[in-house]
Amino acid sequence: MPDNKYSVLFEPVKIGPVTARNRFYQVPHCCGMGHVRPQAHAAMRAMKAEGGWAVVSTEETEIHPTSDLSPYAEQRLWDERDIPALRLMTDAVHDRGALTAIELVHNGNHAQNLLSRGPVLAPSDMSLAIAYPKQARAMDKTDIRAFRRWHRDAARRAKQAGFDIIYVYAGHRMTLTQHFLLPEYNDRTDEYGGSLENRTRLIRELLEETHEEVGDTCAVAFRFAVDEMMGAEGMQAQEEGCAVVEMLAEVPDIWDVNVSDWANDSATTRFEPNDGYQTPYIEFVKQMTSKPVVAVGRLTSADMMVSMVKRGIVDFIGAARPSIADPFLPEKIRSDRTEEIRECIGCNICVSSDTMGIPIRCTQNPTMGEEWRRNWHPEKIEPKGVEETALVIGAGPAGLECAMQLARRGYQVTLAEAGQELGGRAAREAQLKGLGAWRRVADHRIYDLQQRANVQTFMDSRLSAADVIELGIPNVFVATGARWRSDGVGRSSRRPAEISPAMAVLTPDDIMDGKVPGPGPLVIYDDDQAYLAGVIAEHLAEAGCNITFVTPASVVSPFTEYTLEQERIQRSLLEKGVDIVIGHKLISAQNGRCDLGCIYTGKIRTVDCATLLPVTERFRQCDLYNELQNSPESGLQTLELIGDAAMPGLIADAVYAGHMTARNFEMNPQKVAQQLFRREIISLENA
Amino acid sequence: MPDNKYSVLFEPVKIGPVTARNRFYQVPHCCGMGHVRPQAHAAMRAMKAEGGWAVVSTEETEIHPTSDLSPYAEQRLWDERDIPALRLMTDAVHDRGALTAIELVHNGNHAQNLLSRGPVLAPSDMSLAIAYPKQARAMDKTDIRAFRRWHRDAARRAKQAGFDIIYVYAGHRMTLTQHFLLPEYNDRTDEYGGSLENRTRLIRELLEETHEEVGDTCAVAFRFAVDEMMGAEGMQAQEEGCAVVEMLAEVPDIWDVNVSDWANDSATTRFEPNDGYQTPYIEFVKQMTSKPVVAVGRLTSADMMVSMVKRGIVDFIGAARPSIADPFLPEKIRSDRTEEIRECIGCNICVSSDTMGIPIRCTQNPTMGEEWRRNWHPEKIEPKGVEETALVIGAGPAGLECAMQLARRGYQVTLAEAGQELGGRAAREAQLKGLGAWRRVADHRIYDLQQRANVQTFMDSRLSAADVIELGIPNVFVATGARWRSDGVGRSSRRPAEISPAMAVLTPDDIMDGKVPGPGPLVIYDDDQAYLAGVIAEHLAEAGCNITFVTPASVVSPFTEYTLEQERIQRSLLEKGVDIVIGHKLISAQNGRCDLGCIYTGKIRTVDCATLLPVTERFRQCDLYNELQNSPESGLQTLELIGDAAMPGLIADAVYAGHMTARNFEMNPQKVAQQLFRREIISLENA
Repeated sequence: MPDNKYSVLFEPVKIGPVTARNRFYQVPHCCGMGHVRPQAHAAMRAMKAEGGWAVVSTEETEIHPTSDLSPYAEQRLWDERDIPALRLMTDAVHDRGALTAIELVHNGNHAQNLLSRGPVLAPSDMSLAIAYPKQARAMDKTDIRAFRRWHRDAARRAKQAGFDIIYVYAGHRMTLTQHFLLPEYNDRTDEYGGSLENRTRLIRELLEETHEEVGDTCAVAFRFAVDEMMGAEGMQAQEEGCAVVEMLAEVPDIWDVNVSDWANDSATTRFEPNDGYQTPYIEFVKQMTSKPVVAVGRLTSADMMVSMVKRGIVDFIGAARPSIADPFLPEKIRSDRTEEIRECIGCNICVSSDTMGIPIRCTQNPTMGEEWRRNWHPEKIEPKGVEETALVIGAGPAGLECAMQLARRGYQVTLAEAGQELGGRAAREAQLKGLGAWRRVADHRIYDLQQRANVQTFMDSRLSAADVIELGIPNVFVATGARWRSDGVGRSSRRPAEISPAMAVLTPDDIMDGKVPGPGPLVIYDDDQAYLAGVIAEHLAEAGCNITFVTPASVVSPFTEYTLEQERIQRSLLEKGVDIVIGHKLISAQNGRCDLGCIYTGKIRTVDCATLLPVTERFRQCDLYNELQNSPESGLQTLELIGDAAMPGLIADAVYAGHMTARNFEMNPQKVAQQLFRREIISLENA
Repeated sequence: MPDNKYSVLFEPVKIGPVTARNRFYQVPHCCGMGHVRPQAHAAMRAMKAEGGWAVVSTEETEIHPTSDLSPYAEQRLWDERDIPALRLMTDAVHDRGALTAIELVHNGNHAQNLLSRGPVLAPSDMSLAIAYPKQARAMDKTDIRAFRRWHRDAARRAKQAGFDIIYVYAGHRMTLTQHFLLPEYNDRTDEYGGSLENRTRLIRELLEETHEEVGDTCAVAFRFAVDEMMGAEGMQAQEEGCAVVEMLAEVPDIWDVNVSDWANDSATTRFEPNDGYQTPYIEFVKQMTSKPVVAVGRLTSADMMVSMVKRGIVDFIGAARPSIADPFLPEKIRSDRTEEIRECIGCNICVSSDTMGIPIRCTQNPTMGEEWRRNWHPEKIEPKGVEETALVIGAGPAGLECAMQLARRGYQVTLAEAGQELGGRAAREAQLKGLGAWRRVADHRIYDLQQRANVQTFMDSRLSAADVIELGIPNVFVATGARWRSDGVGRSSRRPAEISPAMAVLTPDDIMDGKVPGPGPLVIYDDDQAYLAGVIAEHLAEAGCNITFVTPASVVSPFTEYTLEQERIQRSLLEKGVDIVIGHKLISAQNGRCDLGCIYTGKIRTVDCATLLPVTERFRQCDLYNELQNSPESGLQTLELIGDAAMPGLIADAVYAGHMTARNFEMNPQKVAQQLFRREIISLENA
């Protein structure tokens, strides 16, 4: 136990028959790996254990073919054949001193059973939760008995696979047990419907049966969403949420409490800027039970953690996203290096990986998801080879990360930034409403660079090719970024819109440079369809602009469906009075108006426009790179274009590119290729 | 070769160094299996070979991590490690006497590279084709050389895996080679841009290099979309499409020609009712080359096939969907059993499997996709066990299929239908505009049942429980279907809308019963979000109704994005003058109007309404089943509820349920469970 102000966080805590080494608890979280990528999964979870977490959990784990989430990559424990893949994880986590937890799940009408084609089950007849044309059938008593048996059998298999803590899961509006709890989903008239006691019956049975089956050596956890954040339309912490905790107080060995649905639980900083945002909902729980309690809320501040434990709000500091941004968070607190923590920016790029069915990634932690495939470690990196020096041009996300990792490898690093501020788009976008926390991408790296003697940073230093050659540093990494184009070319049209030279046109870069649209109607044209146009609309609506938001998409910012933000964004724009025109392309902008063409019929619709702000596509800034490449006498040994200048993408992509470039520098090219090609492959031997 | 009027279809045809045994050619088609489900894939393709196809192709096959389509389940041949999975297919297909073809692909900016995180490549800088916030970078000469090397290497691996025909693929707007062809995508100024010759250069290089690498034993196929069906905005058969064929006429060993994009190539009967719809676009090709030509167009009519060959339009009858609906189509033509062909209904449920990333399924052929997992054969079924008789109640898709398969197994089958027509919803929905071809689901089965001596069919026979018991047939299968509810309850609201008793309300069942909405505005409220509400809107708009289409979804019929129909549906409704209100829930219907609540803000919007037609959810019709279940003295040995009465879904689901029930009857329950649990699992041994 460390002898510092955080020592309370490092006390061991008993959970039923097992003991956690400290209070850091990685609650179950999805990761787009699951049964589809078991080796990658085991390595990722093992990294958390190595970083000091006392409990490391799986994602949701299907217990039966009637809870089949294909094609998504969740965890699976249908039968014995799934045990070896899970054993990879439990062995790797145990080797690093942590306990393992498994979140068993039956997803009820949230499962589509598209692979198994089995029946979809629910407390009552109803549509699927997802817009697939199938309905769930009300479970009869035989179904309920079968379900209890499946859960019991899965618990036994989980124990065989080496898990220490076994979950019953009623949360995120995604699980059958929670569906039984909610009057909205449950209109049964038997002993499983009606009164709260009846609606809780199934959960109590599962908890008791799990104890019975595996309780000798395994703890039984109950993950429970105490509040749906729907007011009187749903479960509320102060009403039935509280009553459920009271009724089941001593039944589980540990309470893992949160809010529902997933978008509320994993709220982004854009809409919930404060860490600890779940505390008001869950703080009552510990008053009602003698069992340990774990809760979440994007907790990264060690001081807040200590306070939460000391005030008796929680026994365990739960984390999903903070453990993704920094798997070594506990270890950094233990060793009094809190300033080194890579703090979660709350952007939900991690969530988007899972919702797209691809391996997890993280804006702050580029090694996340690459532990197995590329053998990347968030805290370790190969020392440098024979080269001594490196020049990184551009201090945006890619350049900062590249410079930092090259410095960690031991090179003498020169970082040259043309502008007067470090951080590039991470700093620039962070000026916009809702994205303030994204500055952490820059801050973490700037702080790190400042600590290092082998880094020289120059601001206000726009280099020409001649300057670079004159510097005489043979290894040059060009991270000069990208600039938004202003001609309307983008995903929906490769031809420029007809924009009159008399029309006032601003780009996102102009807005981030502080330019303000003139008076009169502003048309924001979003064919990027990611997040930025929506952010700018909100930013400028707050500043009083009269905005029409036009997009060929059918919703505002469709990419943000993956980050669970889309509904909030569209609601917020509507509430701020923004006019939204979906399903239209920009045809022309002239004489105080824009002509828009319906994507279905081509029919023209006209909107007033004094200023046009197209958010469509970016131009890569690679003049310097091209010039250097065409200078055969440059004497450069290495010349690489990285980040948005090489391929515009998310900030996460830029950080990743910077990281990879630093890792791959002086590495055997065959090894680099091997990592790119590494993947998990189906066994041809199973039946 | 058969001695019938179809004998020309069974002539062997030479393709470069290989010879096809006849003219039936399963062109490459996706199937949601690929590298994710290699065993299922091999078994499915093998069934085509067994059914008489002379050439059986893969789906698109990624050649490199920069063409990474994860999480979708396409084929993959990144390196040697992918050969064994493909070898499963080539061996199985060769064993059944057919040639195998592989469709190599680089998807350019249609790939997102979400697993590999490699660079996205395109002729010029541009956004991804899919709304993901990343841009592709223009390939430089080094990139182009690398790409040619990857393609050549993949061709060599394909030969090692046993393929006979190796594709270069420029179609569906999805491939890098096609992107180079299109001026819209290619603004290069080097020898790969500008003139058509320059834009064709890369394709010519790939074709020649593939010949060079594997041409000694393998044929080289070129799949080419001759027309984009965008008029002057895209490539046209009469313009550059034709010029490309002329330029490359003798370069490939076979021309596989179609139209682009995928929605045009795989048009549904709803929008392209006629088979052979691609002929006008592709018929010029054979005039320009001495090489064999294969083309598609949902070809099922043997007479049309003969005519197409005799008129010199094609050498091979290409098929994707008809080979899915009936893998034994060639064999049935050969043996003069064309009346037994299960004809594709053109519904694109097969396509929806792939676009969702799950194994292929088919409305007409319930065994499709289940060849490996359930060991189902489309033409073979186990003979009956000890039981002698069966009663099937309800002659919809589930009941008809169940009765037909039970009859094939040898039971004495009694089929009782309450109504005056057989076919259930397959016949009822087929009355609606655009769905006429769906009647084939009923017709195929009714015809089959009529041929069988061991089936007795009774119409107009609504049975009570007492009737059933009195009949004395101990094995009863209840397929009584489902009826649309009228209270507005559905996916978006579990509470009924406030509907005044004075408001005229019709359900989809009423429309299919022939009821006509009264005068005045009609509000169709779609919370089913599949296809039916859109079909009814189109049907009633044609009949002159004044329609407002309201849905909580953000587009009309969102499920039809998976069947590639969504844009056409929304266009068609708009062109017919239907008012579309998206993003709103039905709150109330009274006093000649509906109040609708915005799903984002709750703000109320009012529309005029004389008649309300809610399409939201269905009630299962299981009164008879429940009554029988509660009759302990019934004497029944078997009582099963199947199809929509058990779980409302697609027609494909009902047919599948009827089929499975007939297969599983008298089968060892352990074997049934084994099939439900069967799945492909990741190897834990690869690196």
